[in-house]
Amino acid sequence: MERHLYQAHPVLDHGLVRVIDYMGDDSAITQAARVSYGRGTKSVSNDEGLIRYLMRHWHSTPFEMCEVKFHVKLPVFVARQWIRHRTANVNEYSARYSILDREFYIPAPEQLAAQSTVNNQGRGEVLQGDEAARVLDLLREDAMRSYDHYEAMLSQDGQQGLARELARMNLPANVYTQWYWKVDLHNLFHFLRLRADAHAQYEIRAYAEAMCGIVRDWVPLGLFRIRGLPPGRQCSFPRKASRLLRRRLAGETVTAEKSGMSKGEWREFEAVWG
Amino acid sequence: MERHLYQAHPVLDHGLVRVIDYMGDDSAITQAARVSYGRGTKSVSNDEGLIRYLMRHWHSTPFEMCEVKFHVKLPVFVARQWIRHRTANVNEYSARYSILDREFYIPAPEQLAAQSTVNNQGRGEVLQGDEAARVLDLLREDAMRSYDHYEAMLSQDGQQGLARELARMNLPANVYTQWYWKVDLHNLFHFLRLRADAHAQYEIRAYAEAMCGIVRDWVPLGLFRIRGLPPGRQCSFPRKASRLLRRRLAGETVTAEKSGMSKGEWREFEAVWG
Amino acid sequence: MERHLYQAHPVLDHGLVRVIDYMGDDSAITQAARVSYGRGTKSVSNDEGLIRYLMRHWHSTPFEMCEVKFHVKLPVFVARQWIRHRTANVNEYSARYSILDREFYIPAPEQLAAQSTVNNQGRGEVLQGDEAARVLDLLREDAMRSYDHYEAMLSQDGQQGLARELARMNLPANVYTQWYWKVDLHNLFHFLRLRADAHAQYEIRAYAEAMCGIVRDWVPLGLFRIRGLPPGRQCSFPRKASRLLRRRLAGETVTAEKSGMSKGEWREFEAVWG
Amino acid sequence: MERHLYQAHPVLDHGLVRVIDYMGDDSAITQAARVSYGRGTKSVSNDEGLIRYLMRHWHSTPFEMCEVKFHVKLPVFVARQWIRHRTANVNEYSARYSILDREFYIPAPEQLAAQSTVNNQGRGEVLQGDEAARVLDLLREDAMRSYDHYEAMLSQDGQQGLARELARMNLPANVYTQWYWKVDLHNLFHFLRLRADAHAQYEIRAYAEAMCGIVRDWVPLGLFRIRGLPPGRQCSFPRKASRLLRRRLAGETVTAEKSGMSKGEWREFEAVWG
Repeated sequence: MERHLYQAHPVLDHGLVRVIDYMGDDSAITQAARVSYGRGTKSVSNDEGLIRYLMRHWHSTPFEMCEVKFHVKLPVFVARQWIRHRTANVNEYSARYSILDREFYIPAPEQLAAQSTVNNQGRGEVLQGDEAARVLDLLREDAMRSYDHYEAMLSQDGQQGLARELARMNLPANVYTQWYWKVDLHNLFHFLRLRADAHAQYEIRAYAEAMCGIVRDWVPLGLFRIRGLPPGRQCSFPRKASRLLRRRLAGETVTAEKSGMSKGEWREFEAVWG
Repeated sequence: MERHLYQAHPVLDHGLVRVIDYMGDDSAITQAARVSYGRGTKSVSNDEGLIRYLMRHWHSTPFEMCEVKFHVKLPVFVARQWIRHRTANVNEYSARYSILDREFYIPAPEQLAAQSTVNNQGRGEVLQGDEAARVLDLLREDAMRSYDHYEAMLSQDGQQGLARELARMNLPANVYTQWYWKVDLHNLFHFLRLRADAHAQYEIRAYAEAMCGIVRDWVPLGLFRIRGLPPGRQCSFPRKASRLLRRRLAGETVTAEKSGMSKGEWREFEAVWG
Repeated sequence: MERHLYQAHPVLDHGLVRVIDYMGDDSAITQAARVSYGRGTKSVSNDEGLIRYLMRHWHSTPFEMCEVKFHVKLPVFVARQWIRHRTANVNEYSARYSILDREFYIPAPEQLAAQSTVNNQGRGEVLQGDEAARVLDLLREDAMRSYDHYEAMLSQDGQQGLARELARMNLPANVYTQWYWKVDLHNLFHFLRLRADAHAQYEIRAYAEAMCGIVRDWVPLGLFRIRGLPPGRQCSFPRKASRLLRRRLAGETVTAEKSGMSKGEWREFEAVWG
Repeated sequence: MERHLYQAHPVLDHGLVRVIDYMGDDSAITQAARVSYGRGTKSVSNDEGLIRYLMRHWHSTPFEMCEVKFHVKLPVFVARQWIRHRTANVNEYSARYSILDREFYIPAPEQLAAQSTVNNQGRGEVLQGDEAARVLDLLREDAMRSYDHYEAMLSQDGQQGLARELARMNLPANVYTQWYWKVDLHNLFHFLRLRADAHAQYEIRAYAEAMCGIVRDWVPLGLFRIRGLPPGRQCSFPRKASRLLRRRLAGETVTAEKSGMSKGEWREFEAVWG
């Protein structure tokens, strides 16, 4: 994690994610759990087993003992989705005080997708040929024109100059903003689970995936809370149990020995699935 | 308050605020306080005295026992300020699922202000003549053009049609969105204190003021938590104390009898100011 | 729900739960969802289908649009577990201001369980005979004696009388306190999922179960978010999918028609499990 | 702050506060502010001026960018007040899993105060002679007896042994518990403002004061948000303004030069007080 400090990970065409500061790691999670459960944690022989136990049993408070602060540069429409995660601290660049830069997100051609025909909120096939070219031209031209007019309204050359807090309203939602975003590990996992999911909009998923890469180096044991995602949305169903069920569905008779599960995991699995 | 239910209060050029539901009133505040303080509240003879006492002593939890749900239609740049108040529940119209309407905020001429020369985040004088006209033309034309292109990109006439979640990025920050916003009275007061303040941006202040009018009918006793604002930012300094200090600064010798304060208020005032 | 208003539901030996106020119902959930998803919700023909969809896809914000306020009387050790649910509003009876009543929780004989031998935080078999009698005697006598001393220390008969805020420290954790507890439906579901679970301590589960009964009358459609709990802890795995897997594991070949699922549910199930 | 890491600061008779980890310092506050206000912060020449400005204008988000984690050992009745500060992360020692130690808070003789005769929630004069001795005897004896019985109920010597989650209910509120408590600087300030205040109960104030000493070394510039407290409850009224008003009330004609205020502070002070 020390290697990640201040290092910018590029995302989309002009965005970035970088770690500004962090507190705690895998051992901070288990340290907090051992405070809570006292002698009760002695029977769990190692940190990995304890972390798996905590996750299986939805003990989220030990994960809240780790904290991380990111610097993120992102398009406004992504920021609007992101900010819905309320349990975090944010300092955003203020366009009331300061002037935004001329930077806009323009999708790469392979991301220029049609509306899905089966899913109201999804993407379908990638646009081709003339239609793709027309869309890119419109996005680029409107962005440039609106920024030209933003500058023209602000200008104090031979005129008073419109207030910044008003002029900004002319800028489209693909303009880049930036912020500091600080969050604890439990809430970061929740964010990543929703935003690294295949159903999330590609543009925010690109940020979530860059952050997953960072978190893997920070709390390698904690991470399988995310890694464990089966395809689809059953995100909280433990991965081992999911694999075991698939083996059973395929006709295999899986015993405790061949399950790859610890004793505790097997006992809990059996209690549910027999 | 019953009269306000579902009734739209217009704000700005196309916006609105209306109450969808609410829970509690002045008596819910004092009821909760009486649960907390038990016999301790007997000495306070009436609801108004008790509410003043709670406010003076920063007992915020009784105010959290009232809840209100608003339907709000507002420009995106206002929504972005508003959402920073995290302790509230929000359901926003989703432009991933659905198509936004062709409605944009265009400031009234008397709100078209220049950048303040003394305050980085404020407004100065109102723009005049040619400059004002130019600004209004740019805002109107850019809004219409970006919406035309939004529709053109979405269209499935002879083409596939861009995904809604992508097309929306072309729309400027003065496009209207709408949401349900649910909040408890304590957090609503906090919102109103910051956003009905003279330093708040006019556009969000217009919403805060409409809501103050509604709250006045809902919790008339609770409201002087806001009404009590002296000019400027010392918003938590009780209004009576502020007026008393002014009288003293003007040379008057104010006694307990002439103070207009209750015994408890006077005792606390004297403890601080002598 | 109107019938529940103010009606006390007894819990444990001296405790109670009653509804003081509420806002919203099943239709408030779907109304909020329809604001968010606009035309996107048209394809879901009815409220029940829409609520199932919201739950399957973890759209929690519409559930936050309902709010309920309970009056609860409960032992202090239960209150200490309960308060860990932070996203709620609380006004507790203050033993700094007022004097607590002489009421203590003494477990019923069938709840007087031994420490579990396999689970550090669980209960084993019910205590019998002399041991059970000894425990009940100790609990009763210590409670009465500590309350006698509490009163003796507070008394102003022939002495000054200890401050209430100090005297309360002599009372054991089975003394009853009371509070108003206000919460939105999403967070109430979360509370009930954890506290109505078989692994929760019996004493808090008794409250959770009383509240489940109330919620069933309040938001009958919303409730299967809780009803759907399979035995064990896989509380977020949808109940229909769980039943389907069991049928498959038992060797049945389940088709879409015989699955009891809607088209959308079946599509999602297949995407995960094939 | 590095010197404080892991170092136990004793509080009350058996309690302690120690810093386990922290993130950020004064410069993290100004760094976050400069992200938000961009060029707008250039005019503020130094960190101290910028921090004073942020506090005067209630910009709380930059203070949320610092985080600290404490290990605290404290009596249960103090823990119950403390936990009402919801915006923090907690891992408490669990008496469901583990056995509590035989440690109880017994007030020092000079803290053994009578009930206040003017304030329902306050303390009056210190108890003397026989009454004091009686109270101390009762507190000590009840604590020891209840712990003896706690142990006797748990014991598996010749009996099954009561479940820990039940046995704990016999312990009085002055038994010590411990937890990890993690909080951001903004919310820590709020905690300290309320709990280091003269109206807070002495026992929690003792913790707040120990933490103030630590915070002074951590964020020396940030601290005058607390240092600035005038006596009494007008905790948000800036200290300089308060001192200036006192000088004026005493008859002095204070000019900008003699005010000790910066230009910005003077301008704001004048806007309110003339």
